[in-house]
Amino acid sequence: MPRVMICGDLVWAHKESEELFSGVADVVRMDSPDRAAFLAGLKKGGKYEGVTGLYRHNVSADHIGVFDREIVDALAAAGVKWIAHNGAGYDQIDVLYCKEKGIWVSNTPGAVDDATATTALYLLISALRCFSRAERSVRAGEWKRSHAAGEAHDLTGRTLAVLGLGGIGLRLAELVHAFPMRVVYHNRRRVPHAPEWCEYFGADRLDEMLAQADVLSVHVPLKDDTVGIVGETMIRKLKPGAVIINTARGKVIDEAAMIRALEDGHLSAVGLDVFPDEPQVNPRLFELPNATLLPHMGTETCDSQKKMEIRALSNLRDFVIKGKGSDIIPEFR
Amino acid sequence: MPRVMICGDLVWAHKESEELFSGVADVVRMDSPDRAAFLAGLKKGGKYEGVTGLYRHNVSADHIGVFDREIVDALAAAGVKWIAHNGAGYDQIDVLYCKEKGIWVSNTPGAVDDATATTALYLLISALRCFSRAERSVRAGEWKRSHAAGEAHDLTGRTLAVLGLGGIGLRLAELVHAFPMRVVYHNRRRVPHAPEWCEYFGADRLDEMLAQADVLSVHVPLKDDTVGIVGETMIRKLKPGAVIINTARGKVIDEAAMIRALEDGHLSAVGLDVFPDEPQVNPRLFELPNATLLPHMGTETCDSQKKMEIRALSNLRDFVIKGKGSDIIPEFR
Repeated sequence: MPRVMICGDLVWAHKESEELFSGVADVVRMDSPDRAAFLAGLKKGGKYEGVTGLYRHNVSADHIGVFDREIVDALAAAGVKWIAHNGAGYDQIDVLYCKEKGIWVSNTPGAVDDATATTALYLLISALRCFSRAERSVRAGEWKRSHAAGEAHDLTGRTLAVLGLGGIGLRLAELVHAFPMRVVYHNRRRVPHAPEWCEYFGADRLDEMLAQADVLSVHVPLKDDTVGIVGETMIRKLKPGAVIINTARGKVIDEAAMIRALEDGHLSAVGLDVFPDEPQVNPRLFELPNATLLPHMGTETCDSQKKMEIRALSNLRDFVIKGKGSDIIPEFR
Repeated sequence: MPRVMICGDLVWAHKESEELFSGVADVVRMDSPDRAAFLAGLKKGGKYEGVTGLYRHNVSADHIGVFDREIVDALAAAGVKWIAHNGAGYDQIDVLYCKEKGIWVSNTPGAVDDATATTALYLLISALRCFSRAERSVRAGEWKRSHAAGEAHDLTGRTLAVLGLGGIGLRLAELVHAFPMRVVYHNRRRVPHAPEWCEYFGADRLDEMLAQADVLSVHVPLKDDTVGIVGETMIRKLKPGAVIINTARGKVIDEAAMIRALEDGHLSAVGLDVFPDEPQVNPRLFELPNATLLPHMGTETCDSQKKMEIRALSNLRDFVIKGKGSDIIPEFR
């Protein structure tokens, strides 16, 4: 019987995990207290010997660290051929090195779209309507004294620019279309299945898009070439008074440039669910009046967490049964 | 030339106000520092003599108080025939007494729908996703330590019960239909223009509706017969773990019964934009972990405020020109 590993505890899909692998594979739980023990376990005679595929969740990094070259080398040497990552973002895995070593990587794209886009919508409403500040004001016993007439705006009729129209960006577009907001987007390529009311702006018209945006919502994955992609240049091309929403990864924004633009009023507000150095948050952000800040809650719902666990486990099961799972990340296509 | 009064300062539509009444009516601004001065001004030879219609905003109550019998008597004696109130709720006007004295009252129903429904949507997301608590946690330097897995839920697929499907409730229904949430509603009568996916529950099936609701959003006006309408009985008939959202008026909920239900866990969360004794907020609410609290921000956007001012001014202008304005409140129909 093939052997698979659960690397990062399951929270919601224990029962489903037993059902999915019953008669299909032996399941071993990664319970090493640290990296050294984990690497030892992968060796011949170790407790993880014979594992060919694994389920991975970012919480495993608390004990064994991220999947860098050292871990990927050890996995390859042990015969692992598939990493079924639970999450949309897989920046904690050196996927290009996995590819080099013949290990496939899948993620859970669709399962996170709804919960993450809902988080972006919440941050967008809060930023345009000054709601986070208003709640701090009422809780400080000051009712709405901090609220200056004219600072709050309706969503309806305003323009949302989506940077990276993947599953999450598209879901956000659907949600704000109910108001409606006008939706414009930039991707490297036009998205063929995007609805006709999502207006595409290619690289040659990116500046034009930024100048029209009341809100810029960031939905690009974190990769070498997206670090700081929302930097001084892009931020200054936004319409004065614009708002930035980030539910992707903290490092895709140049935080210092964003804070400068908030301080000098070029940006009127930000809504952030992610930060460059989580769980640390730049304390300067706490002092800026119109910042709505969440501690990476994008997919924190029991519904979505369960959906994601089952999706990643199913990808792993497909690999065991058919030799290939779904949701293979773009780097492998 | 007829004479009209602006009772409660215009903030957004100064220019429009001049254009609307140019050549149509003399406009006098209510600037009395207190009620006695206001009542004196309405008398023969007073500064407001000859006024037949007036624009009213709740801020006027800061100086002259609400429109109770004393003020309505003075208005009637002065010859006032129309009060064009700026706001959806007109609980600061004794409208039944106005009717008795032959003074018509209009409000601004449609103009507030979008902004208020957006506020309800925000509170709904915050309550189901535990976002207010999460922001307090990150701002206290505790990242998401307060968040217990399993407490947060997606909106998609859950059931929203709308109590009072008027303009605001209907707009909220449209916004959550994008997820979609299932929408059920209770009114005294079925709403003929409601979309077919809004399921009606009459008085005989109210309990059935409450038992199915994940979220109850309150959109009934404050009147004698709606004070405390969401009380112990109704709250206990809600599904255990349900959420209550209130963007209508604080007094339509029995606050003590609501707080008891939050304390004993029957309700999992509340999202409140309104309170029984504004600007006072019951301090017990600040201690309940899953309460999202806003200081009556429902229509606080410059877009909606301007729309409301113009709508109320237009109603007043129509009265002057045609003898009758639009948006006459239901009590007069």
